[in-house]
Amino acid sequence: MENDQYYMEKAIELAKKGIGKVNPNPMVGAVIVKHGVIIGEGYHEKYGCLHAERMALDKCNEDPKDSTLYVTLEPCCHFGKTPPCTDAIIKSKIKRVVIGIKDPNELVSGKGIEILKSHGIQVDTGVLGKECLELNKKFFHYILTKTPFVLMKYAMTVDGKIGTNTGNSKWITGEEARRHVHELRNELSGIMVGIKTVLTDDPLLTCRIPEGRNPIRIICDSHLRIPLYSKIVKTAKDIPTIVATISKDYDKRKILEGFNIKVLPVRESNGRIDLNDLLIQLGTMGIDSILLEGGATLNESALSSGIVNRLNVYIAPKIFGGTISPSPIEGTGISEIEEAYLLTRNKISVIGDDILLQYDVEVKKCLQD
Amino acid sequence: MENDQYYMEKAIELAKKGIGKVNPNPMVGAVIVKHGVIIGEGYHEKYGCLHAERMALDKCNEDPKDSTLYVTLEPCCHFGKTPPCTDAIIKSKIKRVVIGIKDPNELVSGKGIEILKSHGIQVDTGVLGKECLELNKKFFHYILTKTPFVLMKYAMTVDGKIGTNTGNSKWITGEEARRHVHELRNELSGIMVGIKTVLTDDPLLTCRIPEGRNPIRIICDSHLRIPLYSKIVKTAKDIPTIVATISKDYDKRKILEGFNIKVLPVRESNGRIDLNDLLIQLGTMGIDSILLEGGATLNESALSSGIVNRLNVYIAPKIFGGTISPSPIEGTGISEIEEAYLLTRNKISVIGDDILLQYDVEVKKCLQD
Repeated sequence: MENDQYYMEKAIELAKKGIGKVNPNPMVGAVIVKHGVIIGEGYHEKYGCLHAERMALDKCNEDPKDSTLYVTLEPCCHFGKTPPCTDAIIKSKIKRVVIGIKDPNELVSGKGIEILKSHGIQVDTGVLGKECLELNKKFFHYILTKTPFVLMKYAMTVDGKIGTNTGNSKWITGEEARRHVHELRNELSGIMVGIKTVLTDDPLLTCRIPEGRNPIRIICDSHLRIPLYSKIVKTAKDIPTIVATISKDYDKRKILEGFNIKVLPVRESNGRIDLNDLLIQLGTMGIDSILLEGGATLNESALSSGIVNRLNVYIAPKIFGGTISPSPIEGTGISEIEEAYLLTRNKISVIGDDILLQYDVEVKKCLQD
Repeated sequence: MENDQYYMEKAIELAKKGIGKVNPNPMVGAVIVKHGVIIGEGYHEKYGCLHAERMALDKCNEDPKDSTLYVTLEPCCHFGKTPPCTDAIIKSKIKRVVIGIKDPNELVSGKGIEILKSHGIQVDTGVLGKECLELNKKFFHYILTKTPFVLMKYAMTVDGKIGTNTGNSKWITGEEARRHVHELRNELSGIMVGIKTVLTDDPLLTCRIPEGRNPIRIICDSHLRIPLYSKIVKTAKDIPTIVATISKDYDKRKILEGFNIKVLPVRESNGRIDLNDLLIQLGTMGIDSILLEGGATLNESALSSGIVNRLNVYIAPKIFGGTISPSPIEGTGISEIEEAYLLTRNKISVIGDDILLQYDVEVKKCLQD
């Protein structure tokens, strides 16, 4: 059992190499072990490419017959972009398959395991199941709900401010924490901000780490106020950009489309964008995950719409003070303590001088098995 | 050396038994070791009672001749409430003395060590020095500055709120975190709040843990607005209470004094209590440490007056939201990022569902040797 965990950890490490490159597929890693020696390993490198199991088989430096395969996710048994992995496993005469977590897709969940068993292969599941679930939390959410997994992120001082009394906010956290955010931009499919952030900060919203890839930029802009001279509009020729709106200003829409921006009409809800409708549309477009870098108003709308799955709070060792200094989540807020949004602590990390607190806003029961 | 650390840890653990009972003395622990066996241990139990070294010698179950004494703080060499510990050590023929940290009192610092050495005793210092410094951080501050060590404490949500949009704040954190605060009330000599907190919450400010002792209550009340029907006034007969004020309302002063409240006239600064003057007066009264449970306005005054030494932030896994919901530090605040109050992270603890972040606001250079 200890050995099982050891090899599954290896498989998880391999899976992580696919970060940001396989969406909307899951990250998967696989290790093949024979007589206590790793004879092959692989991972899902890129959307459309070989699955981890097949890559590990391809890389075997010995006949995999009678070996054990460790794989973070239940092998697929259907034709997708590639043929079923179960076929390749059976053909290679692997004796035992150790699986981190079952396929969350209810239509196929358990079927891969059944097929392997029916061919006399010993199958064990749930080894480092929690870690394998965490590895693909965004993927599982997307598969089950068909809407993107939303990670809300903000940086604040120890006294809960995201800006000074004049709104200055550059920079609250240190270099390492800001780099961490760029890693998230590399990992998640989309990045979302409100129009206020565009008007105030004129941000680029790109991923600035070596070999990183830019997330699709999504601007919530109810009344199409986005300036044509903003960096977002100017760079939309090169970086996929979506402007979600309830505006009927067809002229401005057309102009924006001329800049290669996808203008997305969304249902209205209390004079604003209906975020649930927006998420359904983004899900249909294959966007499996979104980094919400919000602004206090959009943050509150997102929370009260129930679309936020996870929260990353970066806390800098600073105090700004000030009654009028902005806080990370504004809007109306709640009046009774019992109405508070409840979170579940996920992890605490130290990043340079700053602290990262990560919480889950909502835990889907069906994912906890 | 490893053994030295082991026994010094023991001495530190012993010292902590004096928590809340020895102020304004330091907590001190001592262990006497002979041939690898502990033959005596002791600690400073209560202000005015035996010092740790003497207690350890008294408790020895064997002749301490040729043994090693581990003590968290340099032994005293002067007559105070008790005779010098150096005398007792020399008389007992202890061979070696291992000291955590030197006496911070510049007038005697190093003198105890010199006396021991001049009697042929081997003396080693600095074993777990950092831990021994932390143990008596409040004491060292008080000795060096003659003003109380101020620990500011607040509880907030993950989005930096200390109340809902209607000001509700009971309770933000869970039972364990609230119990932790009562342990602080037991440990520190005084507890300080602003008049707004009295008017809003009508608190008792007592220590509600078994065998705990109440801190001296200090109310910052510039204009003597404290209601006579408040719990503070009603219980002042039994619990030492100070009301600091700049008011010249001698009638109200007299009435309050009739309730056994000490009314403390303080210098004015911008129409408010001069907190630096207040701290000097409290220091003169022997108050070595204060828990500041502030309110957002007093918190900001305390910070900008430079009287805060340490900060405990309890963060609950909740979100309140709300533009008007109160934040822990208000007042004017700063406008340029560079003006921010800078903190040094001290520790991160998990307390039940909540997180405690502890920071030092200021590190006195002279204490770092």
